[in-house]
Amino acid sequence: MTAAERFLSLSARDLRFEVEELYANYIGCLDEERFEEWPGFFTEPCLYRIIPRENFERGLPLSLWLCENQGYLQDRVTGIRKTLVYGPRMLRRMVSAIRILGWKDGELEVRANYTSYETLTDEPTRVFNVGQYRDKIVVEGDRLKFREKLCVYDSLLVPNSLIFPL
Amino acid sequence: MTAAERFLSLSARDLRFEVEELYANYIGCLDEERFEEWPGFFTEPCLYRIIPRENFERGLPLSLWLCENQGYLQDRVTGIRKTLVYGPRMLRRMVSAIRILGWKDGELEVRANYTSYETLTDEPTRVFNVGQYRDKIVVEGDRLKFREKLCVYDSLLVPNSLIFPL
Amino acid sequence: MTAAERFLSLSARDLRFEVEELYANYIGCLDEERFEEWPGFFTEPCLYRIIPRENFERGLPLSLWLCENQGYLQDRVTGIRKTLVYGPRMLRRMVSAIRILGWKDGELEVRANYTSYETLTDEPTRVFNVGQYRDKIVVEGDRLKFREKLCVYDSLLVPNSLIFPL
Repeated sequence: MTAAERFLSLSARDLRFEVEELYANYIGCLDEERFEEWPGFFTEPCLYRIIPRENFERGLPLSLWLCENQGYLQDRVTGIRKTLVYGPRMLRRMVSAIRILGWKDGELEVRANYTSYETLTDEPTRVFNVGQYRDKIVVEGDRLKFREKLCVYDSLLVPNSLIFPL
Repeated sequence: MTAAERFLSLSARDLRFEVEELYANYIGCLDEERFEEWPGFFTEPCLYRIIPRENFERGLPLSLWLCENQGYLQDRVTGIRKTLVYGPRMLRRMVSAIRILGWKDGELEVRANYTSYETLTDEPTRVFNVGQYRDKIVVEGDRLKFREKLCVYDSLLVPNSLIFPL
Repeated sequence: MTAAERFLSLSARDLRFEVEELYANYIGCLDEERFEEWPGFFTEPCLYRIIPRENFERGLPLSLWLCENQGYLQDRVTGIRKTLVYGPRMLRRMVSAIRILGWKDGELEVRANYTSYETLTDEPTRVFNVGQYRDKIVVEGDRLKFREKLCVYDSLLVPNSLIFPL
């Protein structure tokens, strides 16, 4: 049995376990600022978009971030580590209400709510960006990866600026 | 074996899975504003109350919302869709620390923490309403439904007004 | 088979269930202000620290709270119930992205994100303290307990003051 067949044959309960682990590891990677590992959560090619809900619901294409392959993702990491100029900050992410909509043509569709909290030096923590993950997950090697990850956020306003991924 | 017997015989682990799915679906329904599906999460009759913690702990009856059957729930949906006048807003809900207190006379008692975040047009997302779900769940047909759902919220103040369910 | 052997032999999935229950019960205990039960979540001796991320990452020892055994924990409870003077407040805690890093010498290392929300009388709920749990868990009797619990929080600023545990 291949890894893909094994995942496809999992019960709903066991699949939820695998998906919860994926999200926990994804958030752990970002919150601990191990950004170099972040592209490894995605397939090649992939689609990673951060888009305001208003644009998403109207079918407008404008995204705040758009990465279509590993190169784009790597570019973001390079930005964070080397080229971008920004004040020190920490992001803390939470995920909840994970819903597994099921497999379709080898892709697992998942939705979940996320919140994130930003802390700038000498400032109190504040709500940063809140929205919905709309993800398509596939089996690659022996693990789950994001073929598509949309972060559809509720507020048009992004306080300060978006430096780290969501 | 009836559906009720099947749920009653589930292990603690499998029951947690079912309850987590219920909460994820409940929140997904509300956050995606599929309000017409919301009453379907409740039995007939039912009890849905949104009540400040202070009133709840003192045994005071005053609730912000009180719905005692499907008609009341439907009425809320009609309000949202047709009769209420309110500015556009989005709510994002999170649930955590779900605790399953056990079956008693065919009712499953569950407590969980919830937070919700409101986004008004052209405003940043803010903490909206935070509290505890105190729920009684029963098996109806082949699924779990809320016979009783209390949203006991921490702050007496509700910023803006409460239009959508929690 | 001893309780410890049973826990050590659990599958990753079943262990996640046990750990999720532990965190839910821990948070339920604190949010419902059953503080007398709180020390029971820890071994004797133990280590409970609340420390800003900046200090933690630089290896600086200064903690906001430091409890090294049951006596220290009890002392906190006595403070809350009897000796401290503070205005009425409620804390609501959420946990997410629980990651189980595995057993090592009979200790289970776990990381998770937490957020907490404070509500003062006649004020709206606000973000209070946000950070990461870095925990070491052992089997004692037939249950999991914290031998070490670090609450590493993101903001140097603690609004108001920290009266209740995290």
